[in-house]
Amino acid sequence: MPLVRIDFLKGRPEGFGKMAGEIVYEAMRATISVPENDKFQVITEHPPGGLNHADSYLGASYSDGLVLIQITLNAGRTVELKKSLYQRIAGDLHAMLGVRREDVVISLVEVSRENWSFGNGVAQYAG
Amino acid sequence: MPLVRIDFLKGRPEGFGKMAGEIVYEAMRATISVPENDKFQVITEHPPGGLNHADSYLGASYSDGLVLIQITLNAGRTVELKKSLYQRIAGDLHAMLGVRREDVVISLVEVSRENWSFGNGVAQYAG
Amino acid sequence: MPLVRIDFLKGRPEGFGKMAGEIVYEAMRATISVPENDKFQVITEHPPGGLNHADSYLGASYSDGLVLIQITLNAGRTVELKKSLYQRIAGDLHAMLGVRREDVVISLVEVSRENWSFGNGVAQYAG
Repeated sequence: MPLVRIDFLKGRPEGFGKMAGEIVYEAMRATISVPENDKFQVITEHPPGGLNHADSYLGASYSDGLVLIQITLNAGRTVELKKSLYQRIAGDLHAMLGVRREDVVISLVEVSRENWSFGNGVAQYAG
Repeated sequence: MPLVRIDFLKGRPEGFGKMAGEIVYEAMRATISVPENDKFQVITEHPPGGLNHADSYLGASYSDGLVLIQITLNAGRTVELKKSLYQRIAGDLHAMLGVRREDVVISLVEVSRENWSFGNGVAQYAG
Repeated sequence: MPLVRIDFLKGRPEGFGKMAGEIVYEAMRATISVPENDKFQVITEHPPGGLNHADSYLGASYSDGLVLIQITLNAGRTVELKKSLYQRIAGDLHAMLGVRREDVVISLVEVSRENWSFGNGVAQYAG
């Protein structure tokens, strides 16, 4: 159910986007109980100018390696769970792909369970 | 007022994206009372790797023909109306464009009426 | 904290997207108290067919110069503040970049404060 959009600038190695997507998926599996195979991701590599950001904000400095991750998911996770998710995504993108932890910016958008159809025109979560 | 984002992989016939957008618009007109001409759509064809998904989820199997549709719209539609919308979109994309019903994945994001400006810097729905 | 997505068709002068982004950022600073350097924007120039819209809606007519702006931000701004934001964005895009006021379409998506991580895997706004 999470729909994930990952945006970054061109210049990363071949396959970077898919690997980043898998890391986000595994982090959601591990921290916020996302079901197996619940993986719907749009990954966009942008030409120069495709991301516009400040040099730093709240103590984090940003480089051209900024990775913007926006996740639409069902409402209801606690603040603690969201914190675990952020920590896991930033840590794993750093450890596995060399992304600077500061360059991982995450936005969550929460929706209700009946707001999804995963194929066949059915609202699978609507009960 | 619905802002619709449609994402799919390159390889579809010329004009596929616009036709898919029109089908989504007509489905919203028919099922959830979207006003005439309330049509604001971003349609993106992605290179290989631009979508990342599992082979199947909850009984639907996905192909390279996956069509991801995210709709931002005013809150307040009933679960029944949302179900009608999903069914109509998947059915019409299948009937008119040959998209596999299983490949139609839909996400709704609900907002309040004052969250829109349709031009001229005015909040047309704010009353 | 606002994550801003700006979508428009190719054909604008070099640097248009970044300038539009800066105008949106300054408008948010001036009208809805967005902090300095809180600027996270995805700017996408689309090929023909990348935007699908009606010729007009609610009295605004649209051209190929349509600029679609979707802003994810913390909930809580009043209707009056949102109206000020719309007016400022449309006015400044017109005055500084020659965008037709009618061609400025804005969508807001509101989220809660703990829904952001601005780097380092931390929920900076969660308190």
